[in-house]
Amino acid sequence: MDTQLAETDIKAPASPQDLRRAQILQAARVCFDRWGFHGASMHQICREAGMSPGALYRYFPSKEQIIAAIAQDEREHSIRILAVFNREGPIVDRLVDTANAYLSDVTQRGFGSLMIEICVESIRNTELGRQFNDIECGVRDVFRKALLEAQRTGEIDPTINVDVALQMLFSIGDGLVMRLHLDPDFTLDAVRPQLRRVIEGLLLPR
Amino acid sequence: MDTQLAETDIKAPASPQDLRRAQILQAARVCFDRWGFHGASMHQICREAGMSPGALYRYFPSKEQIIAAIAQDEREHSIRILAVFNREGPIVDRLVDTANAYLSDVTQRGFGSLMIEICVESIRNTELGRQFNDIECGVRDVFRKALLEAQRTGEIDPTINVDVALQMLFSIGDGLVMRLHLDPDFTLDAVRPQLRRVIEGLLLPR
Repeated sequence: MDTQLAETDIKAPASPQDLRRAQILQAARVCFDRWGFHGASMHQICREAGMSPGALYRYFPSKEQIIAAIAQDEREHSIRILAVFNREGPIVDRLVDTANAYLSDVTQRGFGSLMIEICVESIRNTELGRQFNDIECGVRDVFRKALLEAQRTGEIDPTINVDVALQMLFSIGDGLVMRLHLDPDFTLDAVRPQLRRVIEGLLLPR
Repeated sequence: MDTQLAETDIKAPASPQDLRRAQILQAARVCFDRWGFHGASMHQICREAGMSPGALYRYFPSKEQIIAAIAQDEREHSIRILAVFNREGPIVDRLVDTANAYLSDVTQRGFGSLMIEICVESIRNTELGRQFNDIECGVRDVFRKALLEAQRTGEIDPTINVDVALQMLFSIGDGLVMRLHLDPDFTLDAVRPQLRRVIEGLLLPR
């Protein structure tokens, strides 16, 4: 599987086939949220999509292929979000903006519970867990290069371990995605100023 | 269920019944890690514990009662960890020490994947999710009172929203538990100095 982070061309007008495919994927996400990757059946996905099994199987012959398509969607989302990081400006600002864009994207799309399903797959070290892990590795490499360069120029603290700092940042992201999903009183608007404080505390020179 | 955080008396020497009970709970944790709360069967738990169904059912007539006993165990763990927070000293030091004690406890016990199962339950808002949520609410109340008092004395930044800061801290904890479990190269020793930076950045006055 190609995990390189290159811009994909998705500007062509949607065909009826594309729309039908998107409809199936949306129905699958609803079912996975509700019953998990393993718990949800193709039968339930058909019903949620309002399609016959015969029609659905023409697009996706197996649940694995539906999940692979969702992984591909997530890969395209992560590419769009990385564009925020690749702008000009102080690295801490770019990280904060990227984190906010990511959290805004996942909360708007209700991605929280699916992310937890993906974590379960990662823990059980399944092929599916590995597909999603590949997406993260691509993003992490972009951040790593930028942080190492920012250490060289003194923009961030040269004494911190960049790989550990990246895991800290991803941990904070995971935890926030979960809690933003779980607690309706915990909103991204409330999180933003505190997220900046946390990232600055982690990275800025003392 | 009593969710009050009071010291429990667990100093009596373990009887054969207590040992057998602990053995069942340990076997159940292994099975839940592997197949999830819903996926694991009483049959699998019997086999993992090396017991007949008849013997196991004398201790726990249902899987729900096994899970309730695990929740009770976790409640007792959280009480022991809160003792770290209730010592004397600057609040940031006490929070850092408590976070380290918690992360050390959960990583040593291999709690990471069970925690994710619990998150899935919370997301689906099941009775089981609520049992574990009660534990957290008890801990959170202790932290909230201390943070509000520390704002009053100026020890931490009076401008931050304490409830949001608590969700930030718990989010960071959740994410770290998951990632420490998933990535063998990401260790608590490496996390400690960066965790302090993050907590100080979040709470200390500017």
